Amino acid sequence: MNYSSKILENTVSEIANLPGIGKRSALRLALFMLKQDKEQTHQLAEALISLVEDVKLCVECHNISDAEVCHICSSNIRHKEVICVVEDVRDVMAIENTGQFQGVYHVLGGKISPLEGIGPQDLFIDSLVERIEKNDIKEIIFALSSTMEGDTTNFYIFKRIEKFDLKISAIARGIAVGDELEYADELTLGRSILNRVPFANS
Amino acid sequence: MNYSSKILENTVSEIANLPGIGKRSALRLALFMLKQDKEQTHQLAEALISLVEDVKLCVECHNISDAEVCHICSSNIRHKEVICVVEDVRDVMAIENTGQFQGVYHVLGGKISPLEGIGPQDLFIDSLVERIEKNDIKEIIFALSSTMEGDTTNFYIFKRIEKFDLKISAIARGIAVGDELEYADELTLGRSILNRVPFANS
Repeated sequence: MNYSSKILENTVSEIANLPGIGKRSALRLALFMLKQDKEQTHQLAEALISLVEDVKLCVECHNISDAEVCHICSSNIRHKEVICVVEDVRDVMAIENTGQFQGVYHVLGGKISPLEGIGPQDLFIDSLVERIEKNDIKEIIFALSSTMEGDTTNFYIFKRIEKFDLKISAIARGIAVGDELEYADELTLGRSILNRVPFANS
Repeated sequence: MNYSSKILENTVSEIANLPGIGKRSALRLALFMLKQDKEQTHQLAEALISLVEDVKLCVECHNISDAEVCHICSSNIRHKEVICVVEDVRDVMAIENTGQFQGVYHVLGGKISPLEGIGPQDLFIDSLVERIEKNDIKEIIFALSSTMEGDTTNFYIFKRIEKFDLKISAIARGIAVGDELEYADELTLGRSILNRVPFANS
């Protein structure tokens, strides 16, 4: 591309460093910023800096937080004895949106993936074991994605915590509410039959 | 969405103000920035601020520029007597990429669009007329998109400049190089027959 401005070219290449944004979209965004009120772009730039400088990981559950301890871990109406283990922050948000979970979380920060070079030591697994050792935890719920990596991670953690006196469960897999049976994949449909529940609970 | 951090929530909503980026993509970008080296995000933020503070519009052609006069208008190998009229900066880049044009540009900053409330006074049309009055311009080439708005804008400018002793042309419309005739739309195919060129030039 022939940029008529080095500053524009530099900005485009900085924006295009973000995942999922190519040079063409980056240029479109840069030209948009040149058209809109400058103040808007200043606000965006300040928000980005505040994000990387001020956001913390909760020391308990490693969820993203503005304080040392996140609002879920510091709440006194949450059931601290039930820990839901998730991959990342988005999963916490998704479960919180359901309003169905009253316990607390443990954010691993990813899943074990030998292909991507992510081992157990790269995830917050030791701190989960420590939480179980030091607190009176009654139940661990695995809510990782049901992929090979998710299953591996679940199994690895299971092996590390099976010695504790705990209930260990995993979120139910099955046909999504509102989905047509005929379009469901065989694995999911099979699991939903194996793990069928008494009709009154369904 | 239930954000566990107000800072994250604010950043996501700032990013989602950009065109074509929804809340979900904005969250993905924000989480990416939290994972990558802080320095990268600082560089991005600085690039955005430099963009809106330091980039100028060339006083001659209104192209984006780092200096008062852009590198095309200030070049002494370009033919200043031929002006190509385009909608925006991206069109200048596209034509420059072809390497086929030796003249200079005039960036209108959009096209006349009554539906969007853009009239001639919102575009750099007066300054084009002024350039023609003050300089020895020999040819004006219209390179606007061939839409209703593009045609309206061409016609409006044509009416304003027909009194000058100028060659006024428009870029050729026709079947794209490499395209199959059978998939071309009728209008384009029709125009490409009407505007056929001697075989040696094709």
